[in-house]
Amino acid sequence: MPAIDLNSDLGESYGAWTLGDDVAMLKLVTSANVACGFHAGDPATLWACCSAASELTVRIGAQVGYHDLAGFGRRFIDVAPRDLTADVVYQIGALDGLAQVSGSAVAYVKPHGALYNAIVHHREQARAVVAAVTAYDDTLPVLGLPGSVFLEEAEKAGLRTVIEAFADRAYTPDGTLVPRTTDGAVLRDPAVVAERVRRLVVDHTLEAVDGTVLAVTAESVCVHGDTPAAVEMATAIRSLLDAEGVTVEPFV
Amino acid sequence: MPAIDLNSDLGESYGAWTLGDDVAMLKLVTSANVACGFHAGDPATLWACCSAASELTVRIGAQVGYHDLAGFGRRFIDVAPRDLTADVVYQIGALDGLAQVSGSAVAYVKPHGALYNAIVHHREQARAVVAAVTAYDDTLPVLGLPGSVFLEEAEKAGLRTVIEAFADRAYTPDGTLVPRTTDGAVLRDPAVVAERVRRLVVDHTLEAVDGTVLAVTAESVCVHGDTPAAVEMATAIRSLLDAEGVTVEPFV
Amino acid sequence: MPAIDLNSDLGESYGAWTLGDDVAMLKLVTSANVACGFHAGDPATLWACCSAASELTVRIGAQVGYHDLAGFGRRFIDVAPRDLTADVVYQIGALDGLAQVSGSAVAYVKPHGALYNAIVHHREQARAVVAAVTAYDDTLPVLGLPGSVFLEEAEKAGLRTVIEAFADRAYTPDGTLVPRTTDGAVLRDPAVVAERVRRLVVDHTLEAVDGTVLAVTAESVCVHGDTPAAVEMATAIRSLLDAEGVTVEPFV
Amino acid sequence: MPAIDLNSDLGESYGAWTLGDDVAMLKLVTSANVACGFHAGDPATLWACCSAASELTVRIGAQVGYHDLAGFGRRFIDVAPRDLTADVVYQIGALDGLAQVSGSAVAYVKPHGALYNAIVHHREQARAVVAAVTAYDDTLPVLGLPGSVFLEEAEKAGLRTVIEAFADRAYTPDGTLVPRTTDGAVLRDPAVVAERVRRLVVDHTLEAVDGTVLAVTAESVCVHGDTPAAVEMATAIRSLLDAEGVTVEPFV
Repeated sequence: MPAIDLNSDLGESYGAWTLGDDVAMLKLVTSANVACGFHAGDPATLWACCSAASELTVRIGAQVGYHDLAGFGRRFIDVAPRDLTADVVYQIGALDGLAQVSGSAVAYVKPHGALYNAIVHHREQARAVVAAVTAYDDTLPVLGLPGSVFLEEAEKAGLRTVIEAFADRAYTPDGTLVPRTTDGAVLRDPAVVAERVRRLVVDHTLEAVDGTVLAVTAESVCVHGDTPAAVEMATAIRSLLDAEGVTVEPFV
Repeated sequence: MPAIDLNSDLGESYGAWTLGDDVAMLKLVTSANVACGFHAGDPATLWACCSAASELTVRIGAQVGYHDLAGFGRRFIDVAPRDLTADVVYQIGALDGLAQVSGSAVAYVKPHGALYNAIVHHREQARAVVAAVTAYDDTLPVLGLPGSVFLEEAEKAGLRTVIEAFADRAYTPDGTLVPRTTDGAVLRDPAVVAERVRRLVVDHTLEAVDGTVLAVTAESVCVHGDTPAAVEMATAIRSLLDAEGVTVEPFV
Repeated sequence: MPAIDLNSDLGESYGAWTLGDDVAMLKLVTSANVACGFHAGDPATLWACCSAASELTVRIGAQVGYHDLAGFGRRFIDVAPRDLTADVVYQIGALDGLAQVSGSAVAYVKPHGALYNAIVHHREQARAVVAAVTAYDDTLPVLGLPGSVFLEEAEKAGLRTVIEAFADRAYTPDGTLVPRTTDGAVLRDPAVVAERVRRLVVDHTLEAVDGTVLAVTAESVCVHGDTPAAVEMATAIRSLLDAEGVTVEPFV
Repeated sequence: MPAIDLNSDLGESYGAWTLGDDVAMLKLVTSANVACGFHAGDPATLWACCSAASELTVRIGAQVGYHDLAGFGRRFIDVAPRDLTADVVYQIGALDGLAQVSGSAVAYVKPHGALYNAIVHHREQARAVVAAVTAYDDTLPVLGLPGSVFLEEAEKAGLRTVIEAFADRAYTPDGTLVPRTTDGAVLRDPAVVAERVRRLVVDHTLEAVDGTVLAVTAESVCVHGDTPAAVEMATAIRSLLDAEGVTVEPFV
């Protein structure tokens, strides 16, 4: 019976500012990429998110990012590798503290935003993130894009790597994501997106924008959590997978 | 043979700004109150400080504070208790991560600056800090002032409490600290301060500003680390204690 | 013909986080208390808000606050007076820059959140804010509560003071606001609130929670802008005032 | 009689952290590049610096930078142009406020650190900075490197551009700065540096690392202010220039 992990970016509110509906999303996904305070997530928000995840037995991952609240971690910062390693350890440790007082623990690491994108190619920063995870706990899996320098370096370092696909993003014939700035880059029809996820899980294929059928093997699918339509989208995906007999469960 | 612990506030540089000489101080004290990033201490600074402490086998404590870089944690902030608990867990966890990748671990907690002063009397905030320590690791000792609400609440919660005295501060006849705004509040003569510490350790007394002899039992003495003269002061204290046969060692 | 100014807190989004609907509110009010980046409002948000205000000929006020993004300026901070004066000048100047490049200028000052509440009684901080406004531009009016130390000090310094009332807040028989923590402190029925504003403007009275009729003379009424129902509430107030022949215009 | 402007980065302390000796430097230079709070400089520091500059009749420039306290503005950030324009207007306005309450005003703009370096080549960010200055006050001169895209765009926009040279930096035969990571990039002998400045002012030449004599026409020379030896260096330069009959005065 086919199985898949659904992950989503959560814990991204900050003080008086609310983003997304963490509790609703936690009822639909199996892995929560919880922010760590550098791009989003004040400690009280993170604690509430970890508590809800713990109660709903959703696994907690550390969604580490650049130190840039004003930019929500979406702007590349040319951080020196040693500083970046320290930043990542700091963030994992901080979230792990809040996860532990919630009866859980950080179970994997997924970089956020511009850092996620940078370390597809930026080897020094990729190594810096890998060094942080390895030093903190080398049994923690890392999530990333297939073919990224990040996963390549993580493998070299002996970390467990988990390939993810994006539920609501268009793919080029090369298997990379269509840039957000291009029309049609983000898919918005829940039925269409749910069907793509089903096909990905059952057939291990994704259709690119030009119709090319791509072979894709992913252990986790990222479902966005920060838009008003996010819960509806995740509900559609979850319903279709349930109906099709796909088990939604954490990656091993 | 008499023994005492010497503690000092360290890791308080931030990015391009340097404060104090961490390595020099780490060669003189037995407990390092390392900042946690909220009032001071960027992650790379904290990592370097934890690494040096680990190498010199100096114990690491989490010096938790208000989230206020511009004020260096020296301004009271009326944080709601639940937010404060989350802030403190976040800080302990973050520092513990960096301590662990340095081959050590957070071994105690000491609040910083305005938070330290507030929870002498502010019961809600005192309880919030105690709740954080208890939830994170209830075997961690906490340092504080004798008679403070903080130590009272910590004891009620079953935490190990450690009373500290201040090497370079004048005391009132009531046993409280002379406020910093009063002339003579801070003692600057290393020989005088060293002799006060010796007497405190050997005779368990401190002389107040009016000559009253106070009975004081402290397990740790705080030596300031952030002034240019700090290293000289700590050296004088350490030398006199060594000469007098006082063992300088971590509190148990 | 009776007239009144309507003011609202705007420009309180930050980076990826949106709060309120600035443009919708700017079509309903005559004075925009625009955040200045210390409690909310990244520069791009402030610029967009000032541009929209300028286009809609809504007057811009500097909504100065404590430096506390995580707390949204809602937590008292014991800032030293000279630091607070510098903080307030910095904020007014920054917003004035953005207002000027939008074809407008800062036309008044209204403190935000915990600072607003603190300087009802805290004379040193009240004086610090007054000193900032006086030094920056002593022709700028300041908004505040009747009877507050802030307005008292502002008058002493020769500033133009503007008394405001709160549209959606319950009042005690003494004429102070019922604390937010009390049930019924915030009124949520647009028709009720609109009628209270009408009566305030036409009869110069407000009914307290116990039915006491208070004599209140206000030159401006604060309409909240940060809740989902804010636009509906402001629309109801504006419609009733228009229907009753009350001119809604900036205070002179 | 030859004349030159000496400029220095000042106002770069932050809260409890002190960097450089502003007052000592203000007695030696004619233009103060005062930080604006984004890479350094809390408002109270900026106010004190502006007050001292005003009293010593040293001209104040806005040293605008990336929003990155932890990185001291020394790390490239991929800020979107419109956000950068807003950030720069915000900073100029904030500093202008503090300069004005000090009896002075912002008289020019000089980008800081990584932003300074980025806009040597990065046209979008260069244009964003130029747009900010133009919108705020198009009579403000801007300082920069000869040949930089920044000065090219500033000229196109009709801004007054001022070319600066670096007193203590080695130059390549191409007239660019030797990167800081190269040995010998920073010159540390006050006598040598003073002689280079003299020659630059009198002969309009600078000797490159390989002995090539470069023709350089600069209206201002940057003297670093943030190192312990900075005052000594600036004193040596100033003394030699005075002795050689070079007038040290602000650029026109």
